[in-house]
Amino acid sequence: MERLPGFRDFYPEPLPSADAWSCDARQYIFDKWRTIAKRYAFREYDGPPLEPLELYTLKSGEEIVGQLYNFADKGERQVAMRPEMTPTLARMVSATERQYKKPIKWFAVPQLFRYERQQKGRLREHFQFNCDIFGEADVSADAELIALLIDSLRAFGLTENDFVIRLSSRNAWQDFYKQRITGEQPDAAQREYQFFQIIDKLEREKPEESEKKLAALGFSLKEVNDFIQSGAPTTELDSILKNLAARGLTEFVKIDYQVIRGLAYYTGVVFEAFDKKGDFRAIAGGGRYNNLVKLISGGKADLPALGFGMGDVVLLELLKARGLLPKFDAQIDFFCMIEDETLRAETLRLIQELRVQGNIVEYSLTPAKSDKQFKRAMELNAIHTMKLERGPTGALVGRLKNLKTREEKTIQSPEGLSGLN
Amino acid sequence: MERLPGFRDFYPEPLPSADAWSCDARQYIFDKWRTIAKRYAFREYDGPPLEPLELYTLKSGEEIVGQLYNFADKGERQVAMRPEMTPTLARMVSATERQYKKPIKWFAVPQLFRYERQQKGRLREHFQFNCDIFGEADVSADAELIALLIDSLRAFGLTENDFVIRLSSRNAWQDFYKQRITGEQPDAAQREYQFFQIIDKLEREKPEESEKKLAALGFSLKEVNDFIQSGAPTTELDSILKNLAARGLTEFVKIDYQVIRGLAYYTGVVFEAFDKKGDFRAIAGGGRYNNLVKLISGGKADLPALGFGMGDVVLLELLKARGLLPKFDAQIDFFCMIEDETLRAETLRLIQELRVQGNIVEYSLTPAKSDKQFKRAMELNAIHTMKLERGPTGALVGRLKNLKTREEKTIQSPEGLSGLN
Repeated sequence: MERLPGFRDFYPEPLPSADAWSCDARQYIFDKWRTIAKRYAFREYDGPPLEPLELYTLKSGEEIVGQLYNFADKGERQVAMRPEMTPTLARMVSATERQYKKPIKWFAVPQLFRYERQQKGRLREHFQFNCDIFGEADVSADAELIALLIDSLRAFGLTENDFVIRLSSRNAWQDFYKQRITGEQPDAAQREYQFFQIIDKLEREKPEESEKKLAALGFSLKEVNDFIQSGAPTTELDSILKNLAARGLTEFVKIDYQVIRGLAYYTGVVFEAFDKKGDFRAIAGGGRYNNLVKLISGGKADLPALGFGMGDVVLLELLKARGLLPKFDAQIDFFCMIEDETLRAETLRLIQELRVQGNIVEYSLTPAKSDKQFKRAMELNAIHTMKLERGPTGALVGRLKNLKTREEKTIQSPEGLSGLN
Repeated sequence: MERLPGFRDFYPEPLPSADAWSCDARQYIFDKWRTIAKRYAFREYDGPPLEPLELYTLKSGEEIVGQLYNFADKGERQVAMRPEMTPTLARMVSATERQYKKPIKWFAVPQLFRYERQQKGRLREHFQFNCDIFGEADVSADAELIALLIDSLRAFGLTENDFVIRLSSRNAWQDFYKQRITGEQPDAAQREYQFFQIIDKLEREKPEESEKKLAALGFSLKEVNDFIQSGAPTTELDSILKNLAARGLTEFVKIDYQVIRGLAYYTGVVFEAFDKKGDFRAIAGGGRYNNLVKLISGGKADLPALGFGMGDVVLLELLKARGLLPKFDAQIDFFCMIEDETLRAETLRLIQELRVQGNIVEYSLTPAKSDKQFKRAMELNAIHTMKLERGPTGALVGRLKNLKTREEKTIQSPEGLSGLN
């Protein structure tokens, strides 16, 4: 029986095949994410992997349904497996924000799902590191969030030579748009949205195509490109750059107005993290979404908000390509060898004590030849082997060998045996 | 907008309401589970939360569908959100077992789902700690697994006064059954299965009911109760008890033939963990299932197997009832106060350095009165406050206060500021 297309099994290392996904690498990534978010005093939350379909159509319109893993449940409810975390988060925050001191700084590591029929071979799930701040309109919050993003990537050994945060602003583009389009238009909001979509696709689309589409809205590609190339920071972007400079993070960020983020709900500063060689899709992306809490709560709550998401798939590819993944093994502290089966019970007692002390301990569950046990200890990359023997007086002695330094040690008393570490 | 019935939001502490679920408590439980499994040299794996429906009907029959969160996806595939981990695990192991040394010792912490229409107010998801061993038929594996279960519970501060593992054996009941039912019966397998079901329900059902049902199969309630009360260990159970005794774990386990586990696929030793006061449902349960890999793989693989599952919900209730949950807060190492706004940039630099050193650091994103900042540091239960000042010569000095010991310290040089810990 096969797993469903687009889903992943995660195996312990050493991996059974070259294309298998590593659970060790996954947990390594999750641990780093959690560690760095906590240093920034972000707190962990989670929500259901299944939500009412309406939560997503409310935010993104009916057209999102084509990309969702949605269905009717046995109670005839229209539901969807979560494609992103922000709507769940906005729901959770708007229901409880009065109980929390502001700013609210939260993170999560959810598994997310999408179902696009046409894209065979593409993953239908991934994990995403989500960090968000609620209740702070000042750009100091944007800077704090971007610093967290930078440090999350540095935690894996990535440097300013590996990645850059491309920083932009919806407000800058809005000003650009409004300076040129004056007077009332019946479909103003929709035209502005179309304009943002063209900017978002600029890098991927042929210049002639962009030129044509921009012209239909009353713009030339040249004036758009001139604005991008000027790269002059707005007041708020300048403030963020200064804040990051104070932290010594200048090398990790640059203004780039080509970034605008496709999603309609962003309201201010937006940013994306890219590898510097340009080998991969965006590593992470985020920005301000000051209107979403009001929308999701039906007006009951209203809080400025911002956040970013970083997926596990592109990050893992990048870490592999840059040789930054550590070797994952069982990290065995002690492999307890049983050469004399009459000492199995005493060895089990020792194993128990070593484990209670916090050590990772392995041994052969059934009788096996000494050289086979030793070979297994080597395969597992164990730090020590340990074995019990009866000394000449009948007292137990422990023989400890450090497989890294080759150092050997004899432990005489049972008290000494339990004091090992 | 509300979340779906039966699903949980997990919030950071302090919780917004008395009935909210704590993400901190959840992660505390997950961390302990992972730590103890690793000490036993178990390795982590995971599979998809969504699987082909057939994976479950193959193992448990069509009647399982009534309890599943199942649907047809957009590709017309019959799929189900995983109700248990064992079928996924058996699929993963049978596809790759030749690449792994035996015994395979794996664990996972999956979220599991069920959908029973009638049970309103009941949870439709929970998390479960799953530990399994493949490729070892000897009862030493059963003992290793039970020891792991015991230590997983002890890791939370639970003692032999709080819980006990009730140990039983399908084989013992099979022998009991076969000694009394001799000769060929046309529906022998089904009758034996019915017998196991009656034993499984013995504790919850009225004696008259059990008596009647047993009589229909040719048994008396008395002989069944006599067998249970005798509690005489079989050879394999005796061997497990001796193994656990060697580890000093005798107090945590007792023979109890009332335990038989409802699921049809168990083949040997079975066990359940219960709180000793009898206030809660089973904390954990497991046993041998030597035929499942063969069944799931369609005969391509065949490995003896055993495992247990422990849910997060009953465990959390038990830990709460016994007062064993720690206080969860943000564990702030340094709250950096900014009293002189001209020193904000320098303070941001200090914050960055403290975080790079591994500290959890919080501060006020925007200007705030000194007493308000200090109050926030106290609310967050921060260990230290730290603030920068200009000394008489214009040099920066750091004022460090330990909020626990009230000790204050002045750090004179910029080098000293970055050497804090």
